[in-house]
Amino acid sequence: YSASQIQTVTLIPGDGIGPEISTAVMEIFDAAKAPIQWEERNVTAIQGPGGKWMIPPDAKESMDRNKIGLKGPLKTPIAAGHPSMNLLLRKTFDLYANVRPCVSIEGYKTPYTDVDLVTIRENTEGEYSGIEHLIVDGVVQSIKLITEQASQRIAEYAFEYARNNQRASVTAVHKANIMRMSDGLFLRKCREAAEKHKDVKFTEMYLDTVCLNMVQDPTQFDVLVMPNLYGDILSDLCAGLIGGLGVTPSGNIGANGVAIFESVHGTAPDIAGKDMANPTALLLSAVMMLRHMGLHGHAKKIETACFDIIRDKKVLTKDLGGNSKCSEFTKAICQRVRDLD
Amino acid sequence: YSASQIQTVTLIPGDGIGPEISTAVMEIFDAAKAPIQWEERNVTAIQGPGGKWMIPPDAKESMDRNKIGLKGPLKTPIAAGHPSMNLLLRKTFDLYANVRPCVSIEGYKTPYTDVDLVTIRENTEGEYSGIEHLIVDGVVQSIKLITEQASQRIAEYAFEYARNNQRASVTAVHKANIMRMSDGLFLRKCREAAEKHKDVKFTEMYLDTVCLNMVQDPTQFDVLVMPNLYGDILSDLCAGLIGGLGVTPSGNIGANGVAIFESVHGTAPDIAGKDMANPTALLLSAVMMLRHMGLHGHAKKIETACFDIIRDKKVLTKDLGGNSKCSEFTKAICQRVRDLD
Ligand SMILES: CC(C)[C@H](C(=O)O)[C@@H](O)C(=O)O
Ligand SMILES: CC(C)[C@H](C(=O)O)[C@@H](O)C(=O)O
Repeated sequence: YSASQIQTVTLIPGDGIGPEISTAVMEIFDAAKAPIQWEERNVTAIQGPGGKWMIPPDAKESMDRNKIGLKGPLKTPIAAGHPSMNLLLRKTFDLYANVRPCVSIEGYKTPYTDVDLVTIRENTEGEYSGIEHLIVDGVVQSIKLITEQASQRIAEYAFEYARNNQRASVTAVHKANIMRMSDGLFLRKCREAAEKHKDVKFTEMYLDTVCLNMVQDPTQFDVLVMPNLYGDILSDLCAGLIGGLGVTPSGNIGANGVAIFESVHGTAPDIAGKDMANPTALLLSAVMMLRHMGLHGHAKKIETACFDIIRDKKVLTKDLGGNSKCSEFTKAICQRVRDLD
Repeated sequence: YSASQIQTVTLIPGDGIGPEISTAVMEIFDAAKAPIQWEERNVTAIQGPGGKWMIPPDAKESMDRNKIGLKGPLKTPIAAGHPSMNLLLRKTFDLYANVRPCVSIEGYKTPYTDVDLVTIRENTEGEYSGIEHLIVDGVVQSIKLITEQASQRIAEYAFEYARNNQRASVTAVHKANIMRMSDGLFLRKCREAAEKHKDVKFTEMYLDTVCLNMVQDPTQFDVLVMPNLYGDILSDLCAGLIGGLGVTPSGNIGANGVAIFESVHGTAPDIAGKDMANPTALLLSAVMMLRHMGLHGHAKKIETACFDIIRDKKVLTKDLGGNSKCSEFTKAICQRVRDLD
């Protein structure tokens, strides 16, 4: 991607507060003169021939063409058999890596300071295989599926990520003392990737030990890579350390440059349409997206403006401890973006 | 159990610092005139006929007779095929519930105050089934086994525990949105137990949400009940909130009054034999044991003495931030116990 050329991104505003926070991001991108053109799509699943749930064809086509998406929160309809929209998107576009940088935000107080880590979660298999059986009455099994291919892919990704983002170490998180074969395979692939990336330090740690150490001193961690369920847990835990899902960006990365960036908080139906939502998580996800596209200058400017406004504490949404509306917070960031020029 | 009668307890001092901290506990119990007589046993597994690893017969016989055990840390020999000692003990005595109260200790500073919760972990099945297969080259599956019987037993236990310990609520922790059948079964059994115990409030929460909320505000939780792996993770996370494994007690409960109480920290070989170890976790586990035996007065006195000495900050072991030896810390608690009489 070249900075001079306008890129088209598929925008999935989502449900609840999704449209408001999407509008906020678009306004801030305009203020920053980010060379992005938005193509809005609705991804709510439809039933295809044979009853299979799928992303609507025009949304699929848009993502296939643009490769990059930005997505707000989606509600999963409770129709029988309707899949989780998040899972369906990961599957449809084979988004194998979920990446969540968790960085302490200056001025936004939590029990921790100086957190600066990234969780990288295998996004396609493991405990999320969906394979379950009733063995006999009252006895159920769920299958955790770990493959060499997916483990190698995510391990490689973690080390590449560390290298490309000037990160010093990668920690593989596992329970290979209990799941010797499955987590053992995952761990082996991490060790092999470590062999190939000697410039990045490699450590291994049990998941329980990571959780304990994480709440005692998160500053000891850098990049962490792990199977699907462990990533589900740890990424949320780490988000909690820095202030929760309202301020945590997330990216889902696939092959060949395909990626969807998203806020991972809910649709907050209770405040939807009331100009009260906090667009920070979606905005920081959009900043991740800009970096993914190589637009580092724009990314830095928007990120700085957002953090400046939070640090200033003058114009904050309610969940951030202020009294301002979403539109006021957005306007303040836009102004700051222009001031930074 | 009657307080006037002397009860025999199987003492498994364990490895590394195990013997020192066991001695400390025995001294404090003596000072408190706890009506306990210790029967020391070594549980390090041996290979029985046919090569099966098992607890030595005299240790097994002692536990079968006394029903109650207190255990220090054990190292697992790295002989090929040697099982984890912890897992082997749980299995041998069918210790189906792992109970860990996590309570903030006054004077021992962590990022959190007023933590007061209990994790109750199903200890026998789930992800710890040990069943794994190589499907084809590079594809491995691990089986998570959930049974109606074990789920019902742990759910019942959690509500009984809440009632007997004046706790207001039980939260079932699950991922039934992903593992619909296995976690679904577990959750159903929790709901059924809740129906039978209307005096205790019941809530359900996804594991990832629990982790996020836990690090943001642990005071919102009371009793939590969950499948094996989730318990492994959450119990360590919660221990981290209050100061780590050096101060966290643990009990493994079986049927018919059988129970083993244990410190869950490691054997700390680097400081073993140097009179530097912190006996707090084992002592508080022994206090849990006294309560389990109905010896509430002795439990209260020892617990109070231990917390008093920690709050005083005059005589603390190194890991607690002081300069004192294990024996000095122990002596201070003994003195305090006597003063409380
Ligand atoms: C919504 C749910 C299926 C999902 C998950 O469990 O992966 C969510 O927790 C997440 O992390 O994106
Ligand atoms: C030692 C290990 C097998 C064990 C587990 O994973 O259960 C430990 O972490 C625990 O919590 O007792």
